[in-house]
Order: sequence, then structure tokens, then C-alpha cells
Amino acid sequence: MFDTQYDVIVVGGGHAGAEAAAAAANMGSSTLLVTMNLQNIGQMSCNPAMGGIAKGQIVREIDALGGYSGIITDKSAIQFKMLNKSKGPAMWSPRAQSDRMRFAEEWRIALENTPKVDFYQDMVSGLIIENNRVAGVVTSLGLKIRSKSVVLTNGTFLNGLIHIGDKQFGGGRAGEKAATGITEQLTSLGFESGRMKTGTPPRVDGRSLDYSVMIPQPGDVVPEKFSYMDTKALTHQRDCHMSHTSALVHDLLREGFDRSPMFNGRIKSLGPRYCPSIEDKINRFADKDSHQLFVEPEGWDTVEVYVNGFSTSLPEDVQFKALRSVRGFENVKFFRPGYAIEYDYFPPTQLKHTLETKSIENLFFAGQINGTTGYEEAASQGLMAGINAHLKVQEKDPFVLQRDEAYIGVLIDDLITKGTEEPYRMFTSRAEYRTLLRQDNADLRLTPKSFEIGLATKERLERMEEKEAKSESFVNFFRETSFKPDEINPILESVESATVKQPDKLFKVFSRPRVTMEHMMQLDSVSSFVTENELNREVMEQAEIQVKYSGYIAKEKNNADKLQRLENIKIPEDFDYTKLKSLSYEAREKLQSIRPVSISQASRISGVSPSDISVLLVFMGR
Amino acid sequence: MFDTQYDVIVVGGGHAGAEAAAAAANMGSSTLLVTMNLQNIGQMSCNPAMGGIAKGQIVREIDALGGYSGIITDKSAIQFKMLNKSKGPAMWSPRAQSDRMRFAEEWRIALENTPKVDFYQDMVSGLIIENNRVAGVVTSLGLKIRSKSVVLTNGTFLNGLIHIGDKQFGGGRAGEKAATGITEQLTSLGFESGRMKTGTPPRVDGRSLDYSVMIPQPGDVVPEKFSYMDTKALTHQRDCHMSHTSALVHDLLREGFDRSPMFNGRIKSLGPRYCPSIEDKINRFADKDSHQLFVEPEGWDTVEVYVNGFSTSLPEDVQFKALRSVRGFENVKFFRPGYAIEYDYFPPTQLKHTLETKSIENLFFAGQINGTTGYEEAASQGLMAGINAHLKVQEKDPFVLQRDEAYIGVLIDDLITKGTEEPYRMFTSRAEYRTLLRQDNADLRLTPKSFEIGLATKERLERMEEKEAKSESFVNFFRETSFKPDEINPILESVESATVKQPDKLFKVFSRPRVTMEHMMQLDSVSSFVTENELNREVMEQAEIQVKYSGYIAKEKNNADKLQRLENIKIPEDFDYTKLKSLSYEAREKLQSIRPVSISQASRISGVSPSDISVLLVFMGR
Repeated sequence: MFDTQYDVIVVGGGHAGAEAAAAAANMGSSTLLVTMNLQNIGQMSCNPAMGGIAKGQIVREIDALGGYSGIITDKSAIQFKMLNKSKGPAMWSPRAQSDRMRFAEEWRIALENTPKVDFYQDMVSGLIIENNRVAGVVTSLGLKIRSKSVVLTNGTFLNGLIHIGDKQFGGGRAGEKAATGITEQLTSLGFESGRMKTGTPPRVDGRSLDYSVMIPQPGDVVPEKFSYMDTKALTHQRDCHMSHTSALVHDLLREGFDRSPMFNGRIKSLGPRYCPSIEDKINRFADKDSHQLFVEPEGWDTVEVYVNGFSTSLPEDVQFKALRSVRGFENVKFFRPGYAIEYDYFPPTQLKHTLETKSIENLFFAGQINGTTGYEEAASQGLMAGINAHLKVQEKDPFVLQRDEAYIGVLIDDLITKGTEEPYRMFTSRAEYRTLLRQDNADLRLTPKSFEIGLATKERLERMEEKEAKSESFVNFFRETSFKPDEINPILESVESATVKQPDKLFKVFSRPRVTMEHMMQLDSVSSFVTENELNREVMEQAEIQVKYSGYIAKEKNNADKLQRLENIKIPEDFDYTKLKSLSYEAREKLQSIRPVSISQASRISGVSPSDISVLLVFMGR
Repeated sequence: MFDTQYDVIVVGGGHAGAEAAAAAANMGSSTLLVTMNLQNIGQMSCNPAMGGIAKGQIVREIDALGGYSGIITDKSAIQFKMLNKSKGPAMWSPRAQSDRMRFAEEWRIALENTPKVDFYQDMVSGLIIENNRVAGVVTSLGLKIRSKSVVLTNGTFLNGLIHIGDKQFGGGRAGEKAATGITEQLTSLGFESGRMKTGTPPRVDGRSLDYSVMIPQPGDVVPEKFSYMDTKALTHQRDCHMSHTSALVHDLLREGFDRSPMFNGRIKSLGPRYCPSIEDKINRFADKDSHQLFVEPEGWDTVEVYVNGFSTSLPEDVQFKALRSVRGFENVKFFRPGYAIEYDYFPPTQLKHTLETKSIENLFFAGQINGTTGYEEAASQGLMAGINAHLKVQEKDPFVLQRDEAYIGVLIDDLITKGTEEPYRMFTSRAEYRTLLRQDNADLRLTPKSFEIGLATKERLERMEEKEAKSESFVNFFRETSFKPDEINPILESVESATVKQPDKLFKVFSRPRVTMEHMMQLDSVSSFVTENELNREVMEQAEIQVKYSGYIAKEKNNADKLQRLENIKIPEDFDYTKLKSLSYEAREKLQSIRPVSISQASRISGVSPSDISVLLVFMGR
């Protein structure tokens, strides 16, 4: 039935699969997206939101690279917030609530409008593997579909097992079948696999809630958006609401602990530490008698509501009784209870930086199959796997982002270097160069690189170049233009900053902590420059950040450059660590298994000590 | 978890379930809709169209009664056509192509906006039955949800088994799980069950088709709409296209016949006779070497296409090879292959006219579970079951439509009186009073009845009353107003109708075959009346039909009234036919099992002869 050999087959149509298919196809690969149900492409299986701290930066990076997640979030958003706006710009994190159905529909339309993406509905139950190289997939119908590469993005579907209280049943998501066959085949080929767990809260009927006793959580007054392209910012928004659990709620939940699969040993695998279930929170923070609940609407029109913070696999009657004791939830009606799901993953140390597996050529993994959690983490891996599958098929150089270039670089380097034993989530603290990796400059950092490999469009590059040129010229204007003391001093007085006696460059006062762009705009010279050069908010913000944080940015760039030297000391792919007896036993074992590409990567492997690195450096002739 | 007892629980969220839930709730019953996947409410599982011959009339009847199918079709339509417009108005049949995703979304929104409908996602695996009366449902999670009545609308999900060539696997629809438990429980309670089969064609990628060699099938130039309420008619539409199979295509399909589950005995149950698979058509009409294929877009934006006329369960490679030989399909790409599905149904002779089961009180069945096929047939049963579940709970009189009142009356009377051994589909030929049962007068026929039982709104009734009053006054105007020969004769000449010498009433010439409303409007008296009374198209059409077909309509009304006399001779519910030895053995058996409510219904049972009816009449004292 499939008479052609595809360049890339993507298995799965979630955040990872959708990005992978779009990227490979947009770069020119003939691409087939195979999914168990074409109606479920681009599902938000958990909460109806994209972005947040560190995750929002990732969405901006995906967009800068020419992925679709930012655009689709903008098109389906019902609320937008820039988190951490009171902190430094490295911490600013965009977050949007989405209309869940619209989000999925926009993904479907976007993929259908990507000419080289074909679609097929069937369950992939195995891979065609020839000489340690993947050559296609086998479906549950028995179809063999040949391809030059395969990207697996199976999410929580591989042998998915859903738990609610005492009950457990197979399923990839509530109401959907699990997928079987792939884990079994891969482990028989020598892959190591493990089990992870994640969970989701009940969905409830918004008509049964009393919002008047909850705290409204509106979006930003002037909402921004995710994409650097010309998507529209929201003109109206829907509120979220906040409520809290109480000692009574906790007591009611505790009554079900003996029937909790988390506590009675039925669930053995680890869940996401920073997205714990409510029973976990009660257990771990026994002294706290209240936790926040964030009540998120699932869309513009629907009454369905997501109870963020109440993820649980307690028996449904316990969930219900406890939630009814939460303020505003006294009459709550359930659409469905929360549940936990266990699924297979493959420890990501079995992957290269390209997300290709080390042992089977042209086979790529992305998303939860690699032990991560989160839509953004999944989408970014999908994008990188799609890009690298295309490049591999074209026999071109791989596309790898360094830790000082992108959160995506940090994410993948962490995964493949350190592995993960619990669902991996991104945080700003994981990035050692987070002052460089800001949400405002993802385009400046990444769009040129993506254009070079043929993914980001000319239009995207030109928008970025215009922004870059204009903000640079604005920064130069601040460097070169002088102020007179009597025009600047009223401003400085208004922010209680020391006045000046001598004229000086604008850059100097603008660098002061409490002086903002708004203050600078009170100067005729500045406001004229802005008007004459038609600078938009984005450019002005960029210039402001570059002026005010120039010191920090320069310092971090310097640190990154130093490390780059270690990064440049490459280790040959077939290096045999077992013969290097002066390495510690643990280091030898880890290095042999992870096979770092550089001294720098080697230094990040847990169990590899500075003295091991010295041994390596000596051996490499440094 | 469910602490309240619902009035009505509806199991299933397809066309039948959605209408049932809406009707019961709108009449005032607290209603719970339980479905395996809340995301799949209102799915068009087969082709993306509503209406058609006889079916369009049913949608108009559903709308007239206050059901939602008409409104939702209007909101999601991408094309509208009034079929059979060249024939008499009894044959006029509205049909619309819908955007499949929008259709489902509109259903979801409509139900969420129905205040008394609650939702719950879970599989219903059994019923709570106490003293031969249903008292709720049991779900796969083990939840017991109590209610005063239950409406089962399980569609093709009960022990659903999907066939493609040699392969078979459990499923309620492609990509969805089958439902188990209910059949087993009901048969253990003495219900008779059977298996039926239906099928669906491949879905293909519209981007791979060459529409330039197909015949465009546009919608009407001035499209109408389904609902009598103020939904909007389409201002732009999407074309369908027509292509044809050929001798070559048939040969290619025949090559797979030995692997066909239809022909090798694997599928034993009967499929819909008038919606056969392509292999069935080739087999039964071996002399025909071409069949029509109707290529239907699945929505406004999607590239997914439904290949109407190519329903098949042949192996997917055979489907593919054959379809590639169809003109315009030379490069077709499949989204998914066609398949057949076998599922459980319950012979509908086990039901009363209210769709309540005879043996378990307050348990209602609607849709494919009763052996029907078609969205419209399902939706109308759901509506009637929802209405009657509510009325039963309220201890009010049942709501039954007679055969001369509605296609819905014909449908249900046929089902419960004659049963069905293959999927039952509505045709105009099934209605003996089809001149009365037109799409243009469903509101006049049904809205007052529905208002009386508390379903149709006041607004709906008033719209209908205004239409009725205006069209009556217009008909009276034609009856009372005279023409002068010299103003009418040019018109009569233009349509080659005999000219007149004497003045006479307008009604007289308007009754002539080739004289239309358009001609009448050329008369000043008529056009002034229309303007002065602000008559819209709908009113004018109604008046025209009542003038031109007054003879036929009167005759059929007379026939119907005669039959009504037999309908009025009721048979007591506990009548014991076994003691009436003068009945034929077959009649006794059938009557005892079907338990007709009237002599008229008894006469429609197959195997009950006119002499059996005479015996009954004598016994009833007539």
C-alpha cells in the first residue's frame, strides 16, 4: 500500500511528533506521520497551558527555530501572562492558557498545510531494522512502511497502564488504547527500558463551581505573545481562578491513602518531582495545611475545567469527597476523575546529541519516551529529532545546540549525559548561562542557525535581522548620545537616584537600577529617535535589556567562551575507556556507556571527577 | 461520588445519545450523559453529511420538535442542496455536507449550554436493575450511578469487532475501544440480541487527488438550511466531486475477494442493503462496470476526504490498488483504509412505541442498538427516547407519533412492529402518507405537539404560528381573489397553458401544473399582497404547495383519517392471544410477542393476515 520509501516516519502525533513531522517536512524530507487516531493530533493531554518558567523560553526557542508550537499557542490562546516580570529579564517567562480543542485543531491544520507531511492512522507495533539501521515501521494491520529514518514519539502510550485507586487498566490516555510491541522489540535488541509515572487531576464542570469565592487570576493587561512572527496578541482573555486546599481536605484525602496505588506499592515507578500529586504533597509537606489550586478553563466556550494542583490517583470517591471540601467546589461535578499512568521510557543516555539512538542508526527518540515531562520539553525534542533525522538522511552535519545557546541545548545535553530516573522537567536553574538564554532573544540566538540549515524561512530571518539591527542602533545611540544634567536630573530625582553635575552618555544613567526605558523616553532625543526609526516595543525592550544587563551578559559570554575550549576538545567516537586504567572504575564504566563527544560533556557526567578529566586531558595530549 | 439520583442517564454521546440528553434535560429532567470519551461527542463516524432523501425530512422533524440536529448541521454546514427539487414537494429532501470537526464541537457546546445535562467520562459496563426496573448504571471504574431511567445509545460499540481483509480486532470505531458487559447482562435477563454489520470507506488525502478530471458537485445557488429557527444559510460553500469506478477497478477489487471477510464467511451478520460495500455492489450487479463515487471534503480547512461509494472491508492493499485506478485517484494517499464493523443489536420488537423496553421498565434503547443505520434515524430515536424517558419519570402520558404524523412515527412503528434483520434505513417509500410528511411542513405538523409536552420553546411555536397564519391567509387570498382574463392570459400563454375567457379565482389557474408562484407574482394583486404582508420565501413556498397539491393532500388526509379509526381500536396491554384459537398459529405467536397497541398496528405485523384481523375485531366487539 505504501509504494514509496519515506525519508522520515514520525510515530505519534503529540507535541513531539507534530514538531518532528513539521520540521523534517519543512526542510524537504518526505515525511509520514503515523498515529493511532488522527483525531487526536496535538492533544493537550494534561493542562491547557503552554510555557511558564523556563518552559516559556523553550517555546520561544522552538519558534525562533521555525517550529510551530509558538504560533499554534498564539492562535489558540485564551490568556497570556509574562511571569517574573518583576525580576531580571533572564527570569521573564511567557505563559499562555489555550483553548484545548482549538490548539489541537490548529496543529492538525498546520500539519495538513505542510506539503510534505503525509498522514496514516494505525498503531505502529514494530520497527523494520536491517543491519542495525532502521528501515521503516510495521503497523498493527501488518503493513510494512519503509523509510530512511524513524522518529519515535510514543508519549505515555508504550504499555500505558492507568491507575485510579485500586483499579488499573491498559490505556495510553483516558479513553484511549495503549500501544504495544515497540518496547518488547527494542529491549530484545539490547535497549534498556524503564517505567515512569505521571498523573493528571480531575476535569470538572465549571457550571458547578462558585467562582465568587475564588481569587481571579487574569491575564496581563497588555498581553504579549509567543511567536516572533506576525501572530496576533489577544484583545480579550478568560480569567483563571485560585482556590486552596485545607486541613479538612487533606484529612479527607488521607482517608484514601491505604487505597492509593502510590502508597500501597502498586505504582513503583517515579513521577515528576516538581509536579507532584496532591497526595504526594500532603505526604511530603505534612506541616503545610494548605496548597494552591489553579482553576484553568479548557477553552473559550467549554465549561470543562482543569484543576491544576490536584493531580491524583486516589480512588475516585476520595477525590470527589475531598474536592467538594475546597472553597468554591462545594457542589463540584466531575467530568472525569484524576488518574496516574505508568508507561515505558528508554533511559536517554542511549542517545546521541542529535537524539539518534547510539545502537540503531537513523532511529530517533523524542519526548516522554526519553523520560521527560512537559509539552515544551517534548515539542523541542521533537523539533530537534525531526531536524536531525532530515540532516542524517541528507548526509549533512548534525544540528546540535550548545548549553550556552539554548535551553534546548541544556535539555538534550542533560538527558544524554546524565540520564534521568524521574520525569525530567526544565528549570532556569538547570541552565548555567541563563542570562544569555532569555525569552526575548531566542530569535537572535537561534534563527540565523536555523535559516542556515534550511528550516527558518527567509521572512523569519529578515524579521530577526531588522530587530537586531534596530536594537543595536538604539543601544549605540545610548552609547553615543550625551545628556545635559538639567534634563536628566528631574528624572533621577523622581526615582531617588543621585543627580549628576556633568553631561555624560545616556548609557551611563540608563544602566542605573531604577531608570527604565519609560524614563528615558521622557527625553526628547530618545523619543525622537524612537519615532524616526519606527522602533516597536520588542526592539525597545531588547535595547533596554542590552543596556541594563550588559555587564552580566558580557561576563556570562566570557564564561561560556572559556568552557567552549573544553567543548572543542573532542573525544573520538570509538575511544576505548576500558584501557585507561588510571580512570576510576565508575568513570570508566560511565564514560564507556555514555560516550561523551567532548571533554566538556565528559565533565558533566555524574561519577566523573575532576581527576578523571585530568587523566583524559593528559591522554588527549593537552 | 454521584450522590444524587438522576432522572435520566444517557449512555453514549453520538447522534442518538446527544439528542436524548438534550431533550430530557430541556424538558426538565436532571440528565447525565456518560460516554467513553468526552472528546468524541457528536462524531460523524461515517460520511460528513446530514439529510438526503427521507433523511432530510427526519432532520426537519427533529428540528420541529426542538431537537438540535438541524441547528448543529446549519452551524457546521459547508454545502447545502435541496434534492429532488424537480419532483413534487413530498420528495424534496434537504441535504448538507458538514465540517466534521465543527459538527462535533457544536454538539459539545450545545450540550454544555443545556443547563440540566451533566457529563461523565467512563465506560458503562452494566445496568442496575431492581424488580424489572432500571435504577442506574455501573461503570468500568465500578461506580454505581443511580437514576430513574436509562437510555442506551451504544451505536456500534457493543462488542464491536473491526474487519479489514484477514485482520480483525476489537473496537467501537477505528482507533476506539469496544464496550463490553451490557449485551451479556441483557441477554442473561432474557433479551434477544443479534449481530449486525456496517462499513466505511477509506479516508484519503485531498492533496493527492486530481479534481480537474472529476465532475464538480456544487451546492445550491441559493442554499436553504435545516432549522426553522434563525440559523444562517450559507454564503459560500465547498464543492464535492464525482468520479467513477471502472471494469479495471472492479477486476482489481475482485482479486481480493478470497481475502474478503464478507465473502469468506468471517462476517456472518447483515449490512445495510442500501448502503452496500463496493465489493457487494460488484458482486450483486455483475453486469455494471461502473459505479459512482462521491468525493466529500471533511470540512472547511481539512484536506481529509471521504470517498462515498467505496465502503469496503477488503484487504488494505487491495483497496489501495483499486482506488489508484479510479480517475483522479491515480496518486491517492490513504489516511486510513475502509473497514467493516460487527456489533450487537437488540431486535426492536422488544420495545414499545416509546422505545422503552417491554421487559425492563424505564430502560430505553435508541439508534444502532435497535438495528437502524444512519445519523438521522439514530438522532430521531434518541430524541423520542429522551422525551419519553422524561415523561415516564414524570408519570405523564407517553409521546408517540403516528405514521401519518411523521417519518419518525413510521420509523419507530416499523421497528417495533416488524423488527429488522438488516440495518434499517428510512425511505420515502416506507411512508404511506408521504404527501403529508413533507420537509416544508414538519414544523406545522410537530411543533405544536412538542410545545404541548414542554420541549419546543414558545419562540419556536410562535415562529411556526406566524408561518401558518401567513400561509393560510395567502392561500385564502388565492381562493378569494379573482383575476381578469387579460392579465392572466399572457402568463398562461407563456407556459403553453390554455387561456381563459372568464374571470375566475386565482386558485384555479395557480393549481395548473406549469403555473408557479413566480408567474403569480407577475400579477400586481399578488405581489402587493406579498409586500404588504411581508411574506418570506418560506411562507410563499408553503402557500404554493398547499394550493398546487391541495387535492393530493386532502385525499391522503382522508385515507389517514380512515386508518385512524383502526388505530383507535386499542388492544389491552395484557391481552392473551394464546387463548384465541381461531387466530392462525403464526399470528398468535407474533401477536403475543409484539403485543400491538391497536388493531392497526396488529395489521402491520408480518404473518398477521386480514382474516386474523377480522377475528380480533370480532373479539373486540366490533
